Amino acid sequence: MGKNIVQKILDAHLLDGELIPGQEIAIRIDQTLTQDATGTMSYLQFEAMGVPRVKTELSVSYVDHNTLQSGFENADDHRFLQTVAAKHGIYFSRPGNGICHQVHLERFGVPGKTMLGSDSHTPTGGGIGMIAIGAGGLDVAVAMGGGPFYLTCPKVVGVNLTGQLSPMVSAKDVILEVLRRLSVKGGVGKVIEYKGPGVATLSVPERATITNMGAELGATTSIFPSDEVTKAFLKAQNRESAWVELVADSDATYEEEITIDLSALEPMVACPHSPDAVKTVTEVGPIKVDQVLIGSCTNSSYSDLMKVAGILKGKTVHPTVSLGIAPGSKQVFEMLARNGALADLIASGARILESACGPCIGMGQSPNSGAVSVRTFNRNFEGRSGTADAKIYLSSPEIAAAAAITGVLTDPRELGDAIEVAMPEQFLIDDSMVLAPAEEGADVEVLRGPNIKALPINEALADTLQAPVLLKVGDNITTDHIMPAGSKILPLRSNIPAISQYVFSGVDASFADRAKEAGRGIIVGGQNYGQGSSREHAALAPMYLGVKAVITQSFARIHRANLINFGILPLTFVNESDLDKISQGDELEIVDVTTKLGQEEALEIRNVTTGETFSVRPDLTARQIAIIKAGGLLNYTRLNA
Amino acid sequence: MGKNIVQKILDAHLLDGELIPGQEIAIRIDQTLTQDATGTMSYLQFEAMGVPRVKTELSVSYVDHNTLQSGFENADDHRFLQTVAAKHGIYFSRPGNGICHQVHLERFGVPGKTMLGSDSHTPTGGGIGMIAIGAGGLDVAVAMGGGPFYLTCPKVVGVNLTGQLSPMVSAKDVILEVLRRLSVKGGVGKVIEYKGPGVATLSVPERATITNMGAELGATTSIFPSDEVTKAFLKAQNRESAWVELVADSDATYEEEITIDLSALEPMVACPHSPDAVKTVTEVGPIKVDQVLIGSCTNSSYSDLMKVAGILKGKTVHPTVSLGIAPGSKQVFEMLARNGALADLIASGARILESACGPCIGMGQSPNSGAVSVRTFNRNFEGRSGTADAKIYLSSPEIAAAAAITGVLTDPRELGDAIEVAMPEQFLIDDSMVLAPAEEGADVEVLRGPNIKALPINEALADTLQAPVLLKVGDNITTDHIMPAGSKILPLRSNIPAISQYVFSGVDASFADRAKEAGRGIIVGGQNYGQGSSREHAALAPMYLGVKAVITQSFARIHRANLINFGILPLTFVNESDLDKISQGDELEIVDVTTKLGQEEALEIRNVTTGETFSVRPDLTARQIAIIKAGGLLNYTRLNA
Repeated sequence: MGKNIVQKILDAHLLDGELIPGQEIAIRIDQTLTQDATGTMSYLQFEAMGVPRVKTELSVSYVDHNTLQSGFENADDHRFLQTVAAKHGIYFSRPGNGICHQVHLERFGVPGKTMLGSDSHTPTGGGIGMIAIGAGGLDVAVAMGGGPFYLTCPKVVGVNLTGQLSPMVSAKDVILEVLRRLSVKGGVGKVIEYKGPGVATLSVPERATITNMGAELGATTSIFPSDEVTKAFLKAQNRESAWVELVADSDATYEEEITIDLSALEPMVACPHSPDAVKTVTEVGPIKVDQVLIGSCTNSSYSDLMKVAGILKGKTVHPTVSLGIAPGSKQVFEMLARNGALADLIASGARILESACGPCIGMGQSPNSGAVSVRTFNRNFEGRSGTADAKIYLSSPEIAAAAAITGVLTDPRELGDAIEVAMPEQFLIDDSMVLAPAEEGADVEVLRGPNIKALPINEALADTLQAPVLLKVGDNITTDHIMPAGSKILPLRSNIPAISQYVFSGVDASFADRAKEAGRGIIVGGQNYGQGSSREHAALAPMYLGVKAVITQSFARIHRANLINFGILPLTFVNESDLDKISQGDELEIVDVTTKLGQEEALEIRNVTTGETFSVRPDLTARQIAIIKAGGLLNYTRLNA
Repeated sequence: MGKNIVQKILDAHLLDGELIPGQEIAIRIDQTLTQDATGTMSYLQFEAMGVPRVKTELSVSYVDHNTLQSGFENADDHRFLQTVAAKHGIYFSRPGNGICHQVHLERFGVPGKTMLGSDSHTPTGGGIGMIAIGAGGLDVAVAMGGGPFYLTCPKVVGVNLTGQLSPMVSAKDVILEVLRRLSVKGGVGKVIEYKGPGVATLSVPERATITNMGAELGATTSIFPSDEVTKAFLKAQNRESAWVELVADSDATYEEEITIDLSALEPMVACPHSPDAVKTVTEVGPIKVDQVLIGSCTNSSYSDLMKVAGILKGKTVHPTVSLGIAPGSKQVFEMLARNGALADLIASGARILESACGPCIGMGQSPNSGAVSVRTFNRNFEGRSGTADAKIYLSSPEIAAAAAITGVLTDPRELGDAIEVAMPEQFLIDDSMVLAPAEEGADVEVLRGPNIKALPINEALADTLQAPVLLKVGDNITTDHIMPAGSKILPLRSNIPAISQYVFSGVDASFADRAKEAGRGIIVGGQNYGQGSSREHAALAPMYLGVKAVITQSFARIHRANLINFGILPLTFVNESDLDKISQGDELEIVDVTTKLGQEEALEIRNVTTGETFSVRPDLTARQIAIIKAGGLLNYTRLNA
């Protein structure tokens, strides 16, 4: 039976399990990438593993998130990342070199390879035919150490592209159409594979825009074939030798299929506050726009910004609009500076921002109160812009540029002649801002600032788990409840002892102190515990505070995986009503837990305080049990290295 | 008797008093400028004055400080500034158009005119032959309303420039030499007037670098003649008609004179942590450099950045140095983008920052812990970079660029061929980012965000002042003690009710609540009360809390002026030891204060709590008494409008 692209790549990298959707598989990872906001922790974890040099084909450490540097912490993190990369065989992309996904596509992505990245938009690499997956920092650290990546084998959704985009309709409109049809939950447990005659009409950066924002579908990743267009892109990047052809077999099958006629698409926006709240520009109408921002890993390629420059040339930004533009990479930035397009952008009144993620991750450029902000970004969650009541619309660069001129949401086709940008036959190649690792890592001193603390390591699971209930919470607790973010707490991401002081700080300010005093503890919760952001600090910081188990009615998927990674037992009530048998402060006890894990489907817990007993289910695979017993994935990996 | 330039301009603008150093004079102000960090309060004050249109020849509102926008407050302020400018006849320079002093020099500065600016580096305008003085926002508001500016008639220091700068020695080295000789207190009560044959060898931007950093001398301002060089600059800016010749009479005299041989200067730096800690680069030696920042109102002109581009062209920033460059204006930015220099800067690995003040005012780019940072800026106070233990060196662009390449402090003459940059015969003129005010101000709605509150207005002085001592403090209390700054409090600068909650918060956290409860109060202090930053919030916020008088052993000059401006009585003990007769919480009383002010040299205060009495001196001029009686300068100006 023929294979689709996803099956071909997974098959070639399969280390364990079978390619049956829903089953756990393990794959070999060829490349990794990190960015600085998640990277510091990932490299601290890598260091803790004790592996001298990365075992991947290529690992790259990027700096693109914390570039505003409103305190010493960011620059210290950059310096740590630079030296730890040099020591352990990792390439380092310096601040100013651009956004990880854009740079990686230009200079490092290879069709047919697997990549794990500690950033949710890692699927950008699918535009060049990679299986590129976002994951937690510890998973990336393990991959750098040569360990397999475990995932649930995904279903493959075939998206059949027909026709061709009309002028001023763009790749962003394609992914917005997919989001409109599938919704932000439509991709869960799936990989989106693009195919059909429309594929050849899309450039690699256009394909990357589409796979990038597949993250907003909740998909494991998205992927395009590697074809002549891919070959031409790689040739223009002086990397033709990296090309391999990669297309689905003619008799390949898909678990689901949909068809999109590119010719039928028109300019669209995602309305506040969800990437799948998609409407055509015409449907929304000419609402007044206060801010326009162009850039991000979704839409900051050479051709994106050349289109914007073409639209803005000779015009002036509307008096009541603030227009910010952040080029996606040094390559893009320098090419625009060499060919006059950057001068046209500056002339129009655009505010040129550093080549970095910037406002897409809420780092600066918060709009005014109640503003309408049109952005070429990928997320428009409420408050993410830094302005609680702002209304964010996600759009193509063409729509954004049109709105910047007119001051209202505008169909770019109304501006007159369409702007066409040809892909360059040759990109400007200069990798001087990517530093190769040291030949002799042992000679390199890793520089740490006072805010970068050693990674705390969990202890192996004890035979008998006895601990007090430190906190009892209700349903739908998010990782933001467990480990808050924000400008005060984010700079502490490399400092678990400091950040752990804020665990549950919004729920119960005394939690951290109480946990420290108790020395060990258990958290009890209701349904859907740990939903929301994938931040691993929501497991790591409680681990540091001595949390040994979390007992709930149900868990959110990623947080449960993070709990296991850090050696915290995730347990669910056999009878949900047993939640009522526990009060905050009760002492709970599980005897012979190490023995019973894997042998018995349920564990008995005794409430020492009340004398009552009840049953909980661990629901762990053999591998997960071994991880828990070792005290987490790091210890497990070291034991099995 | 012949006149120097300062005497000529002051004479032509004198409204009151005599030009005798040390005496109070009043002058007419032709132009004003504001920046956004001080501007919002200045325009709130202007609004409170009830004057519909500014009465100056030209008033410009710039946005260059709060451009990172880490919350809604900044963009709201920008919108307020834009609309209030349109309403009241003020030109508005949009965010992205550049740093106020650089843009004003390029597009608005006129030789022989007076200018008041709510920024301490307003003396930049002296480079084009203006008397340009920094002042508090209220003084600028009064000037916009047509009121005179009162100042102590300064001494004039003649700085005789001879010879010519050697290649790779620059204007920055001239002002560093002046700082080395005179110190940061050497300019107090003085204007620095440059003269002599060396003047003609310096371009207008070079002269502006020198007058700009005259602020660090503590000088009232600095000024250069307006000559053929000035004429050529204005012609290249399409503003030749603004030129007038302005030179000192041949028999002009000066209170002090010094001579600097430009030919003898060599590359210098100001060492941590003071702008007058000046040494030659050779003396300091090749210390390791972690960060280089180029820009600011001191050194971000076209020729400054062309020199930097010339040095960096074809080279790569040293692997352990982070180089940031912020062009001074849109004009500079676009010219560099058009002629390829910007591409050379990007190619070298420079991080291109928005055209704004940026890291010079601690807005981003904080270096790593313990870093050595070489900056073309004007201040290197400890902690100002955002990194408490960083060591900041102030230098010319040439030295900064050399250090960026070599990674150590480097004499730029060692790099090989000198870079020479000719002044352009024609600058690129495009004023599209400067918005003219509305023809009909009445039609303009001023947009205010939730953080912009109406200005609180003081009440007229009561006949009998009876109030409790809210706080008793010691010597050398700074305006940072009175009204702290920092990232938490700065965004509240447009919101006096909110920011007043932080008055004395570091000294006594209960102060604000206690003051509000009492309704009115008095502060008692020791020597040198109110030293440091000129921030008017240190008077305005206590006024809002009901502070009616401050009684001390002595005051710092600017803070005392601010207290008067906001209608707070500044009183000093006749017998300093009477400080001991007052305890916090005592009730003090001055009877018939409105009558006695101006009639009696000393006022008697009765300590109602202890029954004791003691004498204090107001030391106020008749005008100041009228201001105090009116409840502050705003009320006084309205009464006399």
